Amino acid sequence: MNPSPTTVTTTARQLSGGGPRIGIVGGGQLARMTALAAFELGCDVVVLERAEQVPAANLAVHTLIGDWDNPAALVELAKQVDIVTLENEFVDARSLAAIEAVGRPLHPTSRTIGIVQDKLTQKQALAEAGLEVPRFRAVASPEEIAAAAKELGWPLVLKARRNGYDGKGNATLRDEAGIAGGWQKLGAGSRELFVEEWCPFTRELAAIVTRSINGDSAVYPVVETVQRDHICHRVIAPAPVAADVVSRASELAQAAVAAVGGTGSFGVEMFLTADGKLVVNELAPRVHNSGHYTIEGCHCSQFENHLRAILGWPLGSTELVMPAAVMVNLLGAAAGPGRPTGVEKALAIPGAHVHVYGKTRSNAGRKMGHVTALGRTVAEAIDRAGRAAREIRFGN
Amino acid sequence: MNPSPTTVTTTARQLSGGGPRIGIVGGGQLARMTALAAFELGCDVVVLERAEQVPAANLAVHTLIGDWDNPAALVELAKQVDIVTLENEFVDARSLAAIEAVGRPLHPTSRTIGIVQDKLTQKQALAEAGLEVPRFRAVASPEEIAAAAKELGWPLVLKARRNGYDGKGNATLRDEAGIAGGWQKLGAGSRELFVEEWCPFTRELAAIVTRSINGDSAVYPVVETVQRDHICHRVIAPAPVAADVVSRASELAQAAVAAVGGTGSFGVEMFLTADGKLVVNELAPRVHNSGHYTIEGCHCSQFENHLRAILGWPLGSTELVMPAAVMVNLLGAAAGPGRPTGVEKALAIPGAHVHVYGKTRSNAGRKMGHVTALGRTVAEAIDRAGRAAREIRFGN
Repeated sequence: MNPSPTTVTTTARQLSGGGPRIGIVGGGQLARMTALAAFELGCDVVVLERAEQVPAANLAVHTLIGDWDNPAALVELAKQVDIVTLENEFVDARSLAAIEAVGRPLHPTSRTIGIVQDKLTQKQALAEAGLEVPRFRAVASPEEIAAAAKELGWPLVLKARRNGYDGKGNATLRDEAGIAGGWQKLGAGSRELFVEEWCPFTRELAAIVTRSINGDSAVYPVVETVQRDHICHRVIAPAPVAADVVSRASELAQAAVAAVGGTGSFGVEMFLTADGKLVVNELAPRVHNSGHYTIEGCHCSQFENHLRAILGWPLGSTELVMPAAVMVNLLGAAAGPGRPTGVEKALAIPGAHVHVYGKTRSNAGRKMGHVTALGRTVAEAIDRAGRAAREIRFGN
Repeated sequence: MNPSPTTVTTTARQLSGGGPRIGIVGGGQLARMTALAAFELGCDVVVLERAEQVPAANLAVHTLIGDWDNPAALVELAKQVDIVTLENEFVDARSLAAIEAVGRPLHPTSRTIGIVQDKLTQKQALAEAGLEVPRFRAVASPEEIAAAAKELGWPLVLKARRNGYDGKGNATLRDEAGIAGGWQKLGAGSRELFVEEWCPFTRELAAIVTRSINGDSAVYPVVETVQRDHICHRVIAPAPVAADVVSRASELAQAAVAAVGGTGSFGVEMFLTADGKLVVNELAPRVHNSGHYTIEGCHCSQFENHLRAILGWPLGSTELVMPAAVMVNLLGAAAGPGRPTGVEKALAIPGAHVHVYGKTRSNAGRKMGHVTALGRTVAEAIDRAGRAAREIRFGN
């Protein structure tokens, strides 16, 4: 056991947990939290990322540095693992198909990613399955936007078909005079676009759905998401809405993920309108910010269930362990180092769980961590999570 | 961001979370679970271990390979971190003092470790603080054992003062004829020994106590521990005993850790006798197997609270999130690889959480992982944890 008794050597070599080896395309906070769940189950993780200093790096057996849109890099990852999954939907589905071509399972499949990563084909798939979505039209010019408005009315939401997130890639057009500005904002014809009718929602709801490769499906509690500046600010579980809304939202979310042939954990964002109608806003073909509360809030987190689903293992219970759980995102206040201040003060709030993602740099609005608090009531959990989050600051 | 678009490079370099850097002497499962908690809080961990392939290696920023009884190796660790802690009590306290001598905080302190790692001085400290412990005597020969038996009666427990765990280093002497065998088993004079009166306990209870360097103290629910072959088999939280026993055990545990000037999370093992008396059996100056259930079972785990305590951060809530939590250890059935079978079957049990420690090798009786299940009742949690644990096998 003992090497030389007088020296110390340093190692960066990594230990194998011995279980299935999982490749993750992307190494951000979603990969990090997935890797933490994998770690507990004795699975190994290999990450493919563009840069070295990423949140999941410390948990990966090793990290491959490469461009995830390059099929050769994806194949290199695939060769080192038993199964591949993703932490974002921006990897080109045609590139991802290279993983399946060399015989490695990819979940979600390149077919599902292809449908979902193009918001127009995603909406088409949902509509074809008979699910309620806002009306939409592909548009390729300012004139086509104006024509669509005649049918869909004002305001109108102009969206890029690909690579939009957190409000980036969207423009709300109030009237005909807004078309030129929105057209410019979204690339003036350089990106494929579509328009969607304005949905006068009263609440935004969401649910994580986990679908196994063996056909099982599980749905997490329906939550309310509260956005600030188009970025998820707070998630409240369970959503404070009537029981019939919960059951309809829960069914809608499951049907939506089934409609795109999803495997693994998916985030489903929905709008609730004043007249009680539910529509699907958007699907995320991956673990999702609206499900971070499940780490402490539910028996089995969205991350662990994602792994169970893609490995064909039994799905875990999605029930809440306490009556309420609330998550608040920690966004960078400004550019600066990734190390937060105020964590000690946040930890003084009973029941507050602080998650720091370990990003090297903060930027204004960047997701740097989150806080989850459980409570005996929604009000208690909101109070705890809110007070804790207000103590923490990134980018001072 | 993008390196060459056609190549992939591999890195084992590790990312800093930016928070305080914590050195852990030892890299087993206790260090691993502590490192997981550190990771979430944005702290970094550096491990000192004798071998490279250890459970905590994957989570450490890096691992120093060296002999932890060598003061030079301990100082090398200390220089690389802000604070040092330990995952076992077998590191010689005189060596540990070298860490404090170079100005690095060590928690628990070398003074506390010195008292606790010698079971005789530990008992003396507890007795001096007025706490109930079984009567004991130092012995240095078979004749002294026989003499002690005249006072303490039969059976008599012969114990090594140092380096005993899981029943190793103990011998129960039924009568005078058993002295020779016990004396041989415990080194025939090569180890320092003491004897202790037999305690006719009806239950073994335990509690984790976390004491902060800032003076705060927190105690976890009192649990019942069930041993098999001197190794912890099952932990039941809360212990199914009367409320007055719980409150006395809780106070006794806190007083015991205070008596040795403990800092951080400590395990306190107690005996409950038929006449309702409580005595301290043993202290562990570290996170403890009887507190693994706190990962899912309590708002803040013993691991996170250990970190909070030694960093002087506020302590987290020790309350259970559900009415009951039960942990069952997963021991190696035989020598073999460290990869378990049956994990999928265990995960089919609702509410079962499987922890695999990632050890490279299984041995008969070696702690390879554990299962925790929460429940609405103790009976439900016992049933779930037991069924899940029976599905998993190491060392086939």
